[in-house]
Amino acid sequence: MKKDTILSGMRPTGRLHLGHLSVLENWRRFQERYNCYYMVANWHALTTAFDDPGLTVEATKEMVLDWLMVGIDPEQSTLFVQSEVKEHAELDLLLSLITPLSWLERCPTYKDQVQQFKEQGKDITTHGFLGYPLLMATDIIIYKATLVPVGEDQLPHLEFCREVVRRFNHLYKKEVFPEPQPYLAEVSMIPGLDGRKMSKSYGNEIPLFSNPKEIKSKVQTMVTDPDRIHVHDPGHPEICTVSNFHKVFNTAAIEELEEGCKGGKIGCVPCKKRLVKALIDHLTPYWERRQELEKDPDYVWDVLNEGKRRARWKARQTMQEVRAAMGFEIPGST
Amino acid sequence: MKKDTILSGMRPTGRLHLGHLSVLENWRRFQERYNCYYMVANWHALTTAFDDPGLTVEATKEMVLDWLMVGIDPEQSTLFVQSEVKEHAELDLLLSLITPLSWLERCPTYKDQVQQFKEQGKDITTHGFLGYPLLMATDIIIYKATLVPVGEDQLPHLEFCREVVRRFNHLYKKEVFPEPQPYLAEVSMIPGLDGRKMSKSYGNEIPLFSNPKEIKSKVQTMVTDPDRIHVHDPGHPEICTVSNFHKVFNTAAIEELEEGCKGGKIGCVPCKKRLVKALIDHLTPYWERRQELEKDPDYVWDVLNEGKRRARWKARQTMQEVRAAMGFEIPGST
Ligand code: SF4
Ligand code: SF4
Repeated sequence: MKKDTILSGMRPTGRLHLGHLSVLENWRRFQERYNCYYMVANWHALTTAFDDPGLTVEATKEMVLDWLMVGIDPEQSTLFVQSEVKEHAELDLLLSLITPLSWLERCPTYKDQVQQFKEQGKDITTHGFLGYPLLMATDIIIYKATLVPVGEDQLPHLEFCREVVRRFNHLYKKEVFPEPQPYLAEVSMIPGLDGRKMSKSYGNEIPLFSNPKEIKSKVQTMVTDPDRIHVHDPGHPEICTVSNFHKVFNTAAIEELEEGCKGGKIGCVPCKKRLVKALIDHLTPYWERRQELEKDPDYVWDVLNEGKRRARWKARQTMQEVRAAMGFEIPGST
Repeated sequence: MKKDTILSGMRPTGRLHLGHLSVLENWRRFQERYNCYYMVANWHALTTAFDDPGLTVEATKEMVLDWLMVGIDPEQSTLFVQSEVKEHAELDLLLSLITPLSWLERCPTYKDQVQQFKEQGKDITTHGFLGYPLLMATDIIIYKATLVPVGEDQLPHLEFCREVVRRFNHLYKKEVFPEPQPYLAEVSMIPGLDGRKMSKSYGNEIPLFSNPKEIKSKVQTMVTDPDRIHVHDPGHPEICTVSNFHKVFNTAAIEELEEGCKGGKIGCVPCKKRLVKALIDHLTPYWERRQELEKDPDYVWDVLNEGKRRARWKARQTMQEVRAAMGFEIPGST
């Protein structure tokens, strides 16, 4: 049986934080079983931040260094920047000609996001923003990806992609594209320091690339059970951010820690200390790797340029089939 | 002063007819004064005929042979196929991210055309069809065209293009694109055989590439003044299709012919004969040229492939500026 092909991407937001870690560790695991394409989604970043130029290159570099430090392996996977593979734009345009407006208008995220940005005083209802699920579909099918790691909330986008595939294959009477399947990968939910979702915009994040001192001071600011004043007060780990972190980074000790907290047998200070240690143990190999990587400032670009060559090669093959199916082959053209 | 750059295009509809002649003769004249890009708009053709694959290549060949036969000179002008220059798709995508939906929705042709096709039982409200004026704008500005030959009805599209240019230059703080100016070229209105607009879909056209016999039989079917039964009846050339043709192809004799008709001094048969002669005189050099061109079946493709190289060269230069302005330059990328 042929290996499945996976496509996944991230917008270039610069340095990643702990909230991204389990996605990246999934990506690393996928490498062993699948043919993986990992994309810097810089055109997507523009859909909501078209007026913020100049940030994407530095942000790309920082993000891809974080990918590499957790073990995304450019020998095994294809790491590339979306804007470097023009074929995405070509296919996106062709698909836009067969995609009814109504399919895009009914995408559930569309109206939500337009509303969210409106509340911030920003109008993002551009032609490109409306077409955003179509560009996502393009990114997937141009590599004939068969599996796409998605969260529940993104299932409608994947279903949209499958609809576009069916319409294309039907209109041009050829099975050019496979229908990609969702891969509902388990992602550990790591909250921010204040218990809300971890996000740069809330200022509650722990950077992935860090150092023991910063980890220590970040953990010290974590919100714990507010009703626990003395060690002997019984605690409620289920409402404590520290405990949520232990669940992810200290799985072996979680039962002991919860019981200690509930029974008033462990204080918050030693509990946090143990988290600091667990985090440092988990992250130190990554940090060391990133320090190695940073010694060669061109390395990230070499990786992305090699990835671009591989991605283009595949994308061009697909586009030849697309053009043949649609009747767009100019004799003698290269 | 720098030469102006002109961009103009036609959808690949196959063999052209006399209704296209004055546009082509304008194109030929432009070559002497301007830097001209003439484009086979095959992506545009898909906006309303996405379900009609396989026609465009043959239609492209026939149409471009007609361009060449009237003297569009591939040494002076750049003749190319839109779908062969992927940079159009890239720029179109980038511009779509900064183009408010409302600008597109208010384009006057949008609702009209949707309605027209609806009456034929066809729904063309795709994402790509809505974005059609944006793709037109892209085609123009990617070559930094400064002049665009347009009819009055297309002025709103050009104004839309200028708005997009202003928005881009403003957002990215650089005068990357000039604002193109309309060139209101005079186009002789040649009616169809039945007096309506000449169009393949009405079956009232005279093909550009033809022969004396066909011209003769087409002219015989032309609608004349219906009240004129005998030679001595005074005619009304203003409602006669034959007379409208004389105006274009027999300018030197038009006064004499009109007076002869009004005064009942010339019959419809000799009047038509003179038109047949005028048309054959006008078209014979073109026909001879096309017969020459057809001897080398690869010639059209050679012309279009060379044009593609030139068009790409210019489009790539522009895209480098665009990517730099938007902050999309990946170090070491080629
Ligand atoms: S002991 Fe640990 S789990 Fe319990 S409240 Fe304190 S920090 Fe949270
Ligand atoms: S004489 Fe000529 S212009 Fe007059 S009605 Fe006949 S065909 Fe028409």
